[in-house]
Amino acid sequence: MNMSFLQELFSNITQRDALQRTFGGRKANHTHSDLDDACQALLHSDGEAASIVLASRALDIYHSLDDDNKRAFFESLAKNFAADPRKIDDAYRAYKTDRSNRHLAELFEVSEPRRQELLRRLNLAQGATYELVRMRQDFLSLMRGHKDFDPINADFIHLFASWFNRGFLVLKRIDWTTPASILEKIIRYEAVHKIEGWDDLRRRLDSRDRRCFGFFHPAIGDEPLIFVEVALTKGIPDRIQPILANDHYDIEAAELADSAAFFGISNCQVGLRGISFGNFLIKQVVQELKQELPNLKNFVTLSPLPGFRSWLEKTYRSESGLLTPEAQETLALLDDSQWVYDDEMTNSLNEVVRPLAARYLLKEKNHENLPLNPVARFHLGNGAELHRINWMGDISAKGIEQSAGLMVNYLYVLEHIERNNEKYITNGEIACSAKVRELAKSGRKLLQGEHEK
Amino acid sequence: MNMSFLQELFSNITQRDALQRTFGGRKANHTHSDLDDACQALLHSDGEAASIVLASRALDIYHSLDDDNKRAFFESLAKNFAADPRKIDDAYRAYKTDRSNRHLAELFEVSEPRRQELLRRLNLAQGATYELVRMRQDFLSLMRGHKDFDPINADFIHLFASWFNRGFLVLKRIDWTTPASILEKIIRYEAVHKIEGWDDLRRRLDSRDRRCFGFFHPAIGDEPLIFVEVALTKGIPDRIQPILANDHYDIEAAELADSAAFFGISNCQVGLRGISFGNFLIKQVVQELKQELPNLKNFVTLSPLPGFRSWLEKTYRSESGLLTPEAQETLALLDDSQWVYDDEMTNSLNEVVRPLAARYLLKEKNHENLPLNPVARFHLGNGAELHRINWMGDISAKGIEQSAGLMVNYLYVLEHIERNNEKYITNGEIACSAKVRELAKSGRKLLQGEHEK
Amino acid sequence: MNMSFLQELFSNITQRDALQRTFGGRKANHTHSDLDDACQALLHSDGEAASIVLASRALDIYHSLDDDNKRAFFESLAKNFAADPRKIDDAYRAYKTDRSNRHLAELFEVSEPRRQELLRRLNLAQGATYELVRMRQDFLSLMRGHKDFDPINADFIHLFASWFNRGFLVLKRIDWTTPASILEKIIRYEAVHKIEGWDDLRRRLDSRDRRCFGFFHPAIGDEPLIFVEVALTKGIPDRIQPILANDHYDIEAAELADSAAFFGISNCQVGLRGISFGNFLIKQVVQELKQELPNLKNFVTLSPLPGFRSWLEKTYRSESGLLTPEAQETLALLDDSQWVYDDEMTNSLNEVVRPLAARYLLKEKNHENLPLNPVARFHLGNGAELHRINWMGDISAKGIEQSAGLMVNYLYVLEHIERNNEKYITNGEIACSAKVRELAKSGRKLLQGEHEK
Amino acid sequence: MNMSFLQELFSNITQRDALQRTFGGRKANHTHSDLDDACQALLHSDGEAASIVLASRALDIYHSLDDDNKRAFFESLAKNFAADPRKIDDAYRAYKTDRSNRHLAELFEVSEPRRQELLRRLNLAQGATYELVRMRQDFLSLMRGHKDFDPINADFIHLFASWFNRGFLVLKRIDWTTPASILEKIIRYEAVHKIEGWDDLRRRLDSRDRRCFGFFHPAIGDEPLIFVEVALTKGIPDRIQPILANDHYDIEAAELADSAAFFGISNCQVGLRGISFGNFLIKQVVQELKQELPNLKNFVTLSPLPGFRSWLEKTYRSESGLLTPEAQETLALLDDSQWVYDDEMTNSLNEVVRPLAARYLLKEKNHENLPLNPVARFHLGNGAELHRINWMGDISAKGIEQSAGLMVNYLYVLEHIERNNEKYITNGEIACSAKVRELAKSGRKLLQGEHEK
Repeated sequence: MNMSFLQELFSNITQRDALQRTFGGRKANHTHSDLDDACQALLHSDGEAASIVLASRALDIYHSLDDDNKRAFFESLAKNFAADPRKIDDAYRAYKTDRSNRHLAELFEVSEPRRQELLRRLNLAQGATYELVRMRQDFLSLMRGHKDFDPINADFIHLFASWFNRGFLVLKRIDWTTPASILEKIIRYEAVHKIEGWDDLRRRLDSRDRRCFGFFHPAIGDEPLIFVEVALTKGIPDRIQPILANDHYDIEAAELADSAAFFGISNCQVGLRGISFGNFLIKQVVQELKQELPNLKNFVTLSPLPGFRSWLEKTYRSESGLLTPEAQETLALLDDSQWVYDDEMTNSLNEVVRPLAARYLLKEKNHENLPLNPVARFHLGNGAELHRINWMGDISAKGIEQSAGLMVNYLYVLEHIERNNEKYITNGEIACSAKVRELAKSGRKLLQGEHEK
Repeated sequence: MNMSFLQELFSNITQRDALQRTFGGRKANHTHSDLDDACQALLHSDGEAASIVLASRALDIYHSLDDDNKRAFFESLAKNFAADPRKIDDAYRAYKTDRSNRHLAELFEVSEPRRQELLRRLNLAQGATYELVRMRQDFLSLMRGHKDFDPINADFIHLFASWFNRGFLVLKRIDWTTPASILEKIIRYEAVHKIEGWDDLRRRLDSRDRRCFGFFHPAIGDEPLIFVEVALTKGIPDRIQPILANDHYDIEAAELADSAAFFGISNCQVGLRGISFGNFLIKQVVQELKQELPNLKNFVTLSPLPGFRSWLEKTYRSESGLLTPEAQETLALLDDSQWVYDDEMTNSLNEVVRPLAARYLLKEKNHENLPLNPVARFHLGNGAELHRINWMGDISAKGIEQSAGLMVNYLYVLEHIERNNEKYITNGEIACSAKVRELAKSGRKLLQGEHEK
Repeated sequence: MNMSFLQELFSNITQRDALQRTFGGRKANHTHSDLDDACQALLHSDGEAASIVLASRALDIYHSLDDDNKRAFFESLAKNFAADPRKIDDAYRAYKTDRSNRHLAELFEVSEPRRQELLRRLNLAQGATYELVRMRQDFLSLMRGHKDFDPINADFIHLFASWFNRGFLVLKRIDWTTPASILEKIIRYEAVHKIEGWDDLRRRLDSRDRRCFGFFHPAIGDEPLIFVEVALTKGIPDRIQPILANDHYDIEAAELADSAAFFGISNCQVGLRGISFGNFLIKQVVQELKQELPNLKNFVTLSPLPGFRSWLEKTYRSESGLLTPEAQETLALLDDSQWVYDDEMTNSLNEVVRPLAARYLLKEKNHENLPLNPVARFHLGNGAELHRINWMGDISAKGIEQSAGLMVNYLYVLEHIERNNEKYITNGEIACSAKVRELAKSGRKLLQGEHEK
Repeated sequence: MNMSFLQELFSNITQRDALQRTFGGRKANHTHSDLDDACQALLHSDGEAASIVLASRALDIYHSLDDDNKRAFFESLAKNFAADPRKIDDAYRAYKTDRSNRHLAELFEVSEPRRQELLRRLNLAQGATYELVRMRQDFLSLMRGHKDFDPINADFIHLFASWFNRGFLVLKRIDWTTPASILEKIIRYEAVHKIEGWDDLRRRLDSRDRRCFGFFHPAIGDEPLIFVEVALTKGIPDRIQPILANDHYDIEAAELADSAAFFGISNCQVGLRGISFGNFLIKQVVQELKQELPNLKNFVTLSPLPGFRSWLEKTYRSESGLLTPEAQETLALLDDSQWVYDDEMTNSLNEVVRPLAARYLLKEKNHENLPLNPVARFHLGNGAELHRINWMGDISAKGIEQSAGLMVNYLYVLEHIERNNEKYITNGEIACSAKVRELAKSGRKLLQGEHEK
């Protein structure tokens, strides 16, 4: 279809948003009970015309509340916007007598917390979608640990999952020609490897061997939901510092690259936590890149191993007797802050740390029998395979502290994704290169009494 | 924000849609039970990667089914994709013991028909949103009267109401520079006053005194959801024929118009029946027009009165004794197909028909105590007021047959909309001009024995 | 760079154009001498502000003139807007004494016809570029044969060649999603194979095996300058009727085509005659198609042979004795309007007509020693090669009348274009397939007394 | 017309530009004589296909030259690309005999320096237009003072005036949502009040009381040609510092402003010197602003007075006896770098400097009898009027050094522009407010022996 026609379409939503609620509400001295009243009025409103006005008013009031009043409002959401028990009793009784679709529908309807209808109606106001994402962000920070946290949270998630359906997300390349108003958000939201300002941003984006893509949502406008940074390289890269410095893997032309390395995926909206976009994003970006650069052969991540260092400490260093004395001793070198600059120490550590990391990734599971490491869980769950563990992959302070300096490549092979995913889901089986498997096996000899296993 | 950035965003969704499912599936010899299996697989799939593939497959199969198999599939939706009664029993038991939000959430979750989750998952496939709208269109036509129709229909509506949330709709002006692929749909979907082809379309759109606006949805692309046609006029127009012929109300320049007359509102997607857009559309168009043409003073419809003629027949002509003999006799002139060309007859009829129409609009109510006439119900429900009843407003065959040649102006006065809406909702009170009220009153003397009332 | 930013840029120019000069001027009773005065005022104006106003006024007056007054104005252009002879004499005298760049510059300046400065100044008004193209269209039709035609025409060409510099042209794909306002121009301007209306247009454009591209100019807006229609086929097509009917060469998907056949190139603006775009257009379209569809191997035309039939008549039928009696007799079959439906006749004709066509294309030259046939001249001049002559390639009435039913494929082989072009320019050498050369050779035996050559 | 269609058009030109000549040429060891050869080949090429290739090659070679070789090339342009004297002699002889348009056309053609045809042909290459602008930038800097400078320069100007015709320029609002690639150029090109980086830029652009507009050219892409910065204010502003700090004239909403103050106009392309855009820019921006903000009443500049301080020094301080002793003494306070912080001194200076500035603006003329001050010349030439001279309008170091701290408001009153312009052109009459005229008059008493005049 005509792209330009479509493109034009979307000015409206966002234009409306942009103008809106900028000055409203904040000045007034509202309390949570004003908001309660406004919400009740909204829920009882019959006409759509009135609803929009009431929804705008309620959002304006919410906007003007301080944290205490917001907290009180969330408590009221829990208490006053649940469901009518008598209606549920009646509906269940009818359903029990005749388990028809009709009675099921009634039961479903009356057991829906009224909060959900409230949120749907609030969403009628202009720009409301983003306001509600922000409201959930407040909710997550103000109500964490509150006893009614989970069910209310579930109400948000239930609606957001519909509103942020994958079909409504829009992939957009981000580069140096992207509007500054969006780029400043990229600077702000980058979560993996901090961007130090406009010059650093330009270094990351404005190079023939870099790509960055984000997901956007029509009703949210220029707020990215998630974005990923990609380096085009010859060969699969094993270290992050040259990529960040943009001084090493540089290539003559994008066409000469054979690998696309995803080195940073950042979720931007705290209020959308639990609505997952990363999986779709990676796969769509792979498609985009394949189309632009048919020479690309490897789609791979260069990922941190957060939690590995502390796992290492907790597992092997606090408890003696698990590792061989030599391994134990070598591991202690990590305490010497100079180890990264000392060839001998790094070589020794390499012999011990990488094998243990391979074991950590392949053997350590959480309560659902999925990998303990969250990044591994994410990529393996997407159908990627564990390809390589890179020693000295990230020698920044953060990299050493969290990942003992390691970085991991997860490989996305489009033809294997489905199969990998299925095995992973069904048996928790981890797709893994022979080398990493070998490495894990070699780790055994570091363990006391495991040689025979 | 930068419009062009946003505009660009939306190529993706729709580009994906455009390429997709064009050739797939249709050739295979699938039956409804293949689709059943595919849907069960989709519901039991754990990974997102797999879900997308499974969703695409299911939609492809659906696409290839004939009507009988589709019907069988809808029956299976009713039978096999309801909810698990035992889980409901358990959840209700827990809820009854402790009516907490947690137990409510569980009850809500288990009493959600599995169809809804199925539809949500189907929506993961590319272009699925429109496919599902089309699926509901099939459903409405194939299952009407089926005993389990309503609850399944409610499941569609529940999801569509979220997906087609007002905040996601995009208003777009349609004119002669709109892509042909969209214009041909305008020709096809115009429901009020048929468009006879490209030349007629051009006459309707490509004139300085015409406007047309439609709502579009990002995930649906170039399929309009609803559109409205507007004529800019000096004074509030009372007849549709000059507007359709574009030979009468023509003005030197749009800036000289004082009135915007909405003369046709067409819903385009049968599959979205019950999801209402018209109210929002009118109000947003009023805003657009006010901004473009600050001189506009009247925002008004030129609407048909469908059902009036048959009501007239049923009420007054089949039953004698209600009208005065003179009125009864005059009414009989309607049977003479030549009456529109006869001044005497039209004058006589005018004396009788318009007052009765005023009474019809103001007094005749449906079971919810709302106006019997659906067009009146729509506009009055939006907060408009009944402004004028125009004799010989539409002398086309259809106009005479349905509306006894009358057309009605409903006036949208922005400052009164909310108040009108409230009164209408609360007491069923109809906002109405003094003249129409007068007219209705004058109708009393046509009724036998009503003079004294 | 950011495309969307650029795209937005161009609203302005054209928006301004669109609104402008729509109502102005026409009502007044102007004569050519009013226009003369306005032009003199414009030429003598010093300030830019004033110039714009004066330019607009002059164009408005021009617009309101009838043909006689326009003709008088063009005569005045010839007479009153030439150059000042005394200044030329002075400048030449100075130049003759000292042939420096400074004196050359002066001579150049004073010998520039004042018409050129006038046209440049007229071009300051909004939308003037298109107005001036239309003015030249008038000029070409009203002044043809006029004794001062050529120099004035040269003044237009001199300026248009700068304004319509290839760097300012914009290639745009035209398809069913293109605005109707542009598509109606495609219908109107198609010059090779008439388009019969919207349905026919859709058949030509809205198919996966069709492409259409046009050149546009920023200051002209939605008026195409030239466009080309392309069919994607398996193998090089030899007949136009199946393509026009869209019922033969249809392919499963564009990706399966190995050939792109250019079957119609239409210049749209008479006023731009002599400013050539076709060469650039073809080459740019080849680039676009290669990028979209890497499988394409052949870029080829399916071209008519206008003038061949009349050449045939004139050369061989009016003069007896050139052809062998048998050939002469066969050729006479062309007079039988039924020959296309008679296998025997078509077979006989094929034996005679194709070889003669090959000779016509390869041997018949114009006064510049270039091919007599204009279509051949165009494509061979672009560096294409004569690939195949197709019997019964176009059996429409027009095809038979002009081209004796033949169509010709010219092949664009990117790597040969430059070499072909050079040989053609230098020696008039025609790049040609072995088969066509063979065919031409075989034609010799149709000629009396040429068997031995 | 359909804007989005148009907008899409323009991707091509610039996309081509962007990719182009990025890596080419620079590595080779070319000299000016290689370029000479390439240019001669280009001029002698017959086919368009070949021309484009040759043009690209020539530009690549130019690109790779060092300054000495570039200088040599420009000298060769002067020497080897002039015209053929014999042809000129012949053409003149024919013209002298018969002064017809035909002979004039021939003379014009042969006296056109071949450089012009060369530049036109170079412009066939992709992205060439901008390359040629850059070439002229080199020319201006490398050849200044060279004896053949002017005529070659005139050749550039002759062509650029056609290519950068006002009708091809595109006005574009620049704000915080503009692509970063363009914003960084705004930072770089701002000539009047330096922008200190991204934060300063944001302060200047991203505020509801700021506007910035630039002219762009389709064939040049994202390089602005000129841009203007505007502050929306209540009342006509008299000081620049609060505007730059964005801390004073801030208004609640753009709609509340009554004045638009143009406080910086920056030409961006040195290579386009002599092609004037500022006049068109200001007028088009006034139109844009009037449409967006109908409440605006004043369109005014806040302009520096460059050269005033040095004029003051030269005229009055170097030559004693012109001013009264008191005035002379007061003027000497300017030497005290602390005067801006001293109320007494500033008050005294005010009494002397402003009246002298008024005289300077109204009385001091250049050799063409136009105002000596270039900024005044520009705005008055555009039809603006001298509205107010503001004491302490710019107390930056630069403001004090160049303008003695003054800033001037020039007022653009649309209805007066033409009249002002005409009077200015015809008699050099300066449109001026009564107050400034009064001020100038009051200056007389500062002059010795002028009291009686």
